[in-house]
Amino acid sequence: MNRLRELLGVELPIIQAPMAGVQGSALAVAVSTVGALGSLPGALLGADALRHELMAIRAATDRPYNVNFFCHATPPADIDRDARWRETLAPYFTELGVDMAGIPSGPGRLPFSDDIADVLEEFRPPVVSFHFGLPSAALVQRVHGWGAKILSTATTVDEARWLEAHGADAIIAQGTEAGGHRGHFLSDDLQAQMGTMALVPQVVRAVNVPVIAAGGIADARGIAAALALGASGAQLGTTFLLCPEATTSVVHRAALVSDAARVTAMTNVFTGRPARSIVNRLVREVGPLSAMAPAFPLATAAITPLRAAAEREGSGDFSPLWAGQNASGCREMPAMAIVMDLATALLYA
Amino acid sequence: MNRLRELLGVELPIIQAPMAGVQGSALAVAVSTVGALGSLPGALLGADALRHELMAIRAATDRPYNVNFFCHATPPADIDRDARWRETLAPYFTELGVDMAGIPSGPGRLPFSDDIADVLEEFRPPVVSFHFGLPSAALVQRVHGWGAKILSTATTVDEARWLEAHGADAIIAQGTEAGGHRGHFLSDDLQAQMGTMALVPQVVRAVNVPVIAAGGIADARGIAAALALGASGAQLGTTFLLCPEATTSVVHRAALVSDAARVTAMTNVFTGRPARSIVNRLVREVGPLSAMAPAFPLATAAITPLRAAAEREGSGDFSPLWAGQNASGCREMPAMAIVMDLATALLYA
Repeated sequence: MNRLRELLGVELPIIQAPMAGVQGSALAVAVSTVGALGSLPGALLGADALRHELMAIRAATDRPYNVNFFCHATPPADIDRDARWRETLAPYFTELGVDMAGIPSGPGRLPFSDDIADVLEEFRPPVVSFHFGLPSAALVQRVHGWGAKILSTATTVDEARWLEAHGADAIIAQGTEAGGHRGHFLSDDLQAQMGTMALVPQVVRAVNVPVIAAGGIADARGIAAALALGASGAQLGTTFLLCPEATTSVVHRAALVSDAARVTAMTNVFTGRPARSIVNRLVREVGPLSAMAPAFPLATAAITPLRAAAEREGSGDFSPLWAGQNASGCREMPAMAIVMDLATALLYA
Repeated sequence: MNRLRELLGVELPIIQAPMAGVQGSALAVAVSTVGALGSLPGALLGADALRHELMAIRAATDRPYNVNFFCHATPPADIDRDARWRETLAPYFTELGVDMAGIPSGPGRLPFSDDIADVLEEFRPPVVSFHFGLPSAALVQRVHGWGAKILSTATTVDEARWLEAHGADAIIAQGTEAGGHRGHFLSDDLQAQMGTMALVPQVVRAVNVPVIAAGGIADARGIAAALALGASGAQLGTTFLLCPEATTSVVHRAALVSDAARVTAMTNVFTGRPARSIVNRLVREVGPLSAMAPAFPLATAAITPLRAAAEREGSGDFSPLWAGQNASGCREMPAMAIVMDLATALLYA
C-alpha cells in the first residue's frame, strides 16, 4: 500500500477507474480532492476538449490525478465487414425509424499520439494511464520526460511482464469481473483472462512494480481483499457511476439500480472490442460476442444513431451499459463521500 | 472464520474441494488429519465403493470430513442427440482406432439418492456437501437427521438465497475461476456467474449462514483475501492435484505443471455440463461449449473410450484436465504439508 502512495503521491490505495463516456473532470477532481487518485478518461476527447478538462482539474485541485488514453492501432477501413455490420443492424434502423445514411464514418476514438502528448505536456499530469498496452517507446519516453508515472492494464501474467519490461511504473491487474473494455493487448483469447482472485497474486509474483487490483471491487472489503492478495491498491469504477459528478446517462443509471445489473456480459457489439456491459437488447440479440462486429473502434459508428434514437424514447436497449460484476457499491451520493466512506471502512476491514 | 470452525468442527478455515475422478479417501484423510476439512467425492462411487472409502476414512481419522454428491436430475436418453454427438466424435474414434460399438450406455454418474443415504447413515459423516443444488427435502432431512451439516454451492446470489432457504448450513460461493464443474442449478446462463471477488461479498450480504469462498484461491494470500471479503473460509481444489494422495492421472499432472495450465476454459465437452479444464485438443476442436454435447452426464460415455485410448499413448488430448485459473499453488508434496504451509503462511498474511 505504501509503495503506491510513494509512487503516485496519493493518501489512499484507491484509484477511480477512468470511464470514457460517463465522466469528465468533475469526478476526477472530487476523487483526487479527498486523497484517492481521480482519473480523467481522454479516449473520446479531441485536443481542445482535453485541454479544457485539464484546465478544470488544475483549477480545482493540486492533488495528483491521472489521465487515461487508449493505445490501440486504428484498423484500416473494411468496407465488406462494415456492410455486413450495417446489414446485421438494419432491422433496428427500420424499427427506430433512423436513416442508415446518417451513420458517421471514421474511427471516433483515436489512440494516444504526439498531438495529445503536446497538450499533456502543457499540464504535466503526474499520472498517465493506458489501456490496450502502451504507446510507442518514444511516446512512453515523452510522458516519463515530464516526470509522470505510467500505469497500464494487464489481463494476463504475460501482459504484466510485457508492461513492466516496456516502462509501466505500476500495473493494473484487470480481472474478468471488471466493467467496460477489457485491456488485453497481447492475445485476444478471452479464455486466457482470469478472475481478479486468480490474476492478482499471479501478477504480483511475476513483476516487481506495484500492482493495482481491478474487477469486482466495490467496497472496503474488496479493497482489503486486494491488499491481502499482494496488490498495492485497488481500482474501482462501477461504484462511482451513480455519483452526481459522473455524466452517466439516465438509462444507464436506471439500469444500474435495476435487477438487470445482476447480469453482465463481455460483449463486442458496442465498439468491436470485448467490454463488460449490463445485458440489454442489443447484447442479447446481436451478441454478446458477434463475428459481424467491425474491429475496434469501427463498430461504434453504426450503433451511435441507434443508441441516440432509443435513448430519446427513454430506452437503453442500444446503449453500452458498462458495469462490472459487482454493482453493489453504486450509490447516488457525491464521489467525495463514497471515497471517505471507503477510507473509514478500510480502517475496520 | 470462527463461525465455520464451530459449524464444522475444523481447526482451519480451509476446505479441500471434493474432486471426483482425481482423488479418493486418501486425500480427504490427509487434509482432515491436520485440521482442515478433507472431502471425499462420492459422485462416481457405487454403494460398495462408497462404503469402502468411508470405512477407510473412519479407520484413519476421527476428525471431521465431508462427503460430496451431485444432485442433478438424470436426463432421459436422447437418441438423436447421442447420435449427433457420436457423429461429431467419429473422426477421433477412427484416428485412435477405437470401435464406437464399445461406447458404454447409461448415465455413469448417479445423483444422490435414498440408497446412497442408506450407506451414509451407517457412517454418519459430519459434513455432506452437494453440487448442482440440493436433493429433495426428504433427503435433506435424512442427512440432517444424523446431525450432519450440509454444504452446497452457489454461483449467483439467487442460488445462495435458494440454498439457505432449502436447508444449507453453509454456502460455497463458487467464482468463475474455480476448476471442475460449475455448481449452478437455477439458471444455466453462464453470463450470470461472477468472479470470486465479485460473488463472495454479494453472497455474504445476501445470506445469514457462513460463506465459503471458492475459485482462484491457491495460497494463504487467497485465503486471507476470502476472509477479508467476509467469507468464513476458503475451498481449494487445484492446489491439491499434484499431491501423492491424489489419484490425478499422469497426463493431468503433466498438464498442470506445463504452460498449458495457464489457459483454462469452461467446457461441456467432457460431461455435458460446463466445467473448467485446461484447454486441450478436444476442448479446442469440439468446444469449449458445444451444442452437440448431450445433457449431463450423458456426454461422458462417448468420451471415455477416446480418453482411455489417448492416455494409453501418453496423450491428454481427450482427458478432462480439470483445473482452476490459479494453478500456482500446485506442488508435488503431501497434502498434510500443503495444509500446514497454508496455515503457517496465514498467520503472516
